Amino acid sequence: MRAYNFNAGPAAIPLEVLERAQKELVNFNNTGMSVMELSHRSKDYEDVHNRANALLRELLGIPDSYEVLFLQGGASLQFSMIPMNFLKENETAHYILTGSWSEKALKEAKALGETRIIASSKDSNYSHIPTDYSLDGIEDGAYLHITSNNTIYGTQWQDYPTSPIPLIADMSSDILCKEIDVEKFSMIYAGAQKNLGPSGVTVVIAKKDFLARAQSNVPTILKYSTHADNKSLYNTPPTFAIYMLSLVLEWAKAQGGIKAIQKNNEEKAGYIYAAIDDSEGFYKAHATQDSRSLMNITFTLPNEELTKKFLAEAKERHFIGLAGHRSVGGCRASTYNAVPKEACMALAEFMNEFRNQNK
Amino acid sequence: MRAYNFNAGPAAIPLEVLERAQKELVNFNNTGMSVMELSHRSKDYEDVHNRANALLRELLGIPDSYEVLFLQGGASLQFSMIPMNFLKENETAHYILTGSWSEKALKEAKALGETRIIASSKDSNYSHIPTDYSLDGIEDGAYLHITSNNTIYGTQWQDYPTSPIPLIADMSSDILCKEIDVEKFSMIYAGAQKNLGPSGVTVVIAKKDFLARAQSNVPTILKYSTHADNKSLYNTPPTFAIYMLSLVLEWAKAQGGIKAIQKNNEEKAGYIYAAIDDSEGFYKAHATQDSRSLMNITFTLPNEELTKKFLAEAKERHFIGLAGHRSVGGCRASTYNAVPKEACMALAEFMNEFRNQNK
Repeated sequence: MRAYNFNAGPAAIPLEVLERAQKELVNFNNTGMSVMELSHRSKDYEDVHNRANALLRELLGIPDSYEVLFLQGGASLQFSMIPMNFLKENETAHYILTGSWSEKALKEAKALGETRIIASSKDSNYSHIPTDYSLDGIEDGAYLHITSNNTIYGTQWQDYPTSPIPLIADMSSDILCKEIDVEKFSMIYAGAQKNLGPSGVTVVIAKKDFLARAQSNVPTILKYSTHADNKSLYNTPPTFAIYMLSLVLEWAKAQGGIKAIQKNNEEKAGYIYAAIDDSEGFYKAHATQDSRSLMNITFTLPNEELTKKFLAEAKERHFIGLAGHRSVGGCRASTYNAVPKEACMALAEFMNEFRNQNK
Repeated sequence: MRAYNFNAGPAAIPLEVLERAQKELVNFNNTGMSVMELSHRSKDYEDVHNRANALLRELLGIPDSYEVLFLQGGASLQFSMIPMNFLKENETAHYILTGSWSEKALKEAKALGETRIIASSKDSNYSHIPTDYSLDGIEDGAYLHITSNNTIYGTQWQDYPTSPIPLIADMSSDILCKEIDVEKFSMIYAGAQKNLGPSGVTVVIAKKDFLARAQSNVPTILKYSTHADNKSLYNTPPTFAIYMLSLVLEWAKAQGGIKAIQKNNEEKAGYIYAAIDDSEGFYKAHATQDSRSLMNITFTLPNEELTKKFLAEAKERHFIGLAGHRSVGGCRASTYNAVPKEACMALAEFMNEFRNQNK
């Protein structure tokens, strides 16, 4: 049977997408070749590449004044590429810390230039998105960096800051989960392995006039302009990962687009949050109510023993990936776009059952 | 029907490998998930990751004193990572130029430090591997860089230089095509998309004591030590590409290992070179006899018109990827490991036929 996949990433991919990829794997589009065997300069591959780009633009409402790039190296490479390109001498890069990934992003910028922490919720073990911060006086800054969703802690920005300087967001774990206003951002980046497809491709959405400000003393392959000037075909792209991305985006469109996906995600997360909220304290959410993530639901049980028992019984019922990250402990259910509603309902039901038997 | 795939890269993948990947695509190893949906921290994925590593070690005879890393970004990212890590101030990096890819590697090193060209065959449009060079006086150099096979020009090193300083080779287009002595090299790197699998993963084989010499002021993700210390699991690896790599390596082992593959490659290239050599000058090889590549066979026809006719008729017969690179013109047949002997025999036969009809 198909597993209930709650992995934090790499994560669930829609079954329809996998089945289509399976069907086409050996002979793509009657070429007599797998999509993996196509030249990245061939018309057949370029159609895939361009379709992924066009679908992402359509789904997110990305204006023509933005580039959409397909890179390699994951968000971790973006942590360095951003300051290499955009943090000039005598400028300061501003970071809001909402978890381990924002810390990692900051660390790489720190090694390359001046940085400042605008706000951080570290003192509460990143249980919420900070609201008590001011952006006054940052007008000369290079950029403001946020992490839109925090996989480990289960928190998510609800209202993005209105920044006087270029706003950059790591949306690896929540891109495409809800409607956003792309124009609030100068750059959005996301590793694909949560909501977009398999690992191995990173999506970058960036304002053209922001890219034009980049420094020039950067290795060719690490310059955004290299990839923008070559439609992400400067070097051989990860063609199969981009093909999978194109199929996931087609699926997302067929679901009714982001509005419909958001509604579905709210329902899905709703089942599990209800199981927590109605548990009379048996399950405790790590994230505060106002910062709860639609994508990663973190909760603890009364003690270590019950946590182990919960995870063991969950495993028997084909629930995968429910162990929490060591920084928070307890459990985590990642309910990315491709996780079906049925899986979330089944988990909520199991949580209720387990509580009744063990309270 | 299956195409005769002579693409320069991404290129042919063994049909058996594609069929196995197809079979396992939706449900890998009875997990109820695709291999793409597995956590990179799960036992099932780690087995794949470790198997790829072990098989590459076995096939190439890589000693324990070497690391085997799976990275992203292709050879193009290696062009920058190598000088970032290993070209210190007051040191010189030495390059032997045998084509466009070595030029690109040099260009990135030049932007980061002192470089010197030891030899180049550019004057003859890279028709051969230089032999008239001396490595005297380079003892203080950071490293010596070569490109073992030149996809565009169809040349290949037959005997590697014996270097007094660390020898680094870009083997993207000929790794695993013939037996090599890994211990001649301090580092070997290769994008996977020619002989190893799909694009999106880069293999790095490096001596541990060479890696230990790297500079420390390098972004975390661009340090080889980061990946060596974390068994290539510092950040999410391109899991599906590594899975495909593991299947290709299993296939290579089943062929009888590299010795058997080399013999097969020699036969395959032999058919096509014979069609050139026996053509009484109708086909002209670009590469000189002593520098001919086992992997990329470059040749020209008497004129532009016949070249076009040749390519058009070839296309009708399902020969894919035979157009030469614009730097050389004419035609190119890439006969990587996964290109079947039958495809090479069919091409040689077609070449003979075409010559008889058009000479």
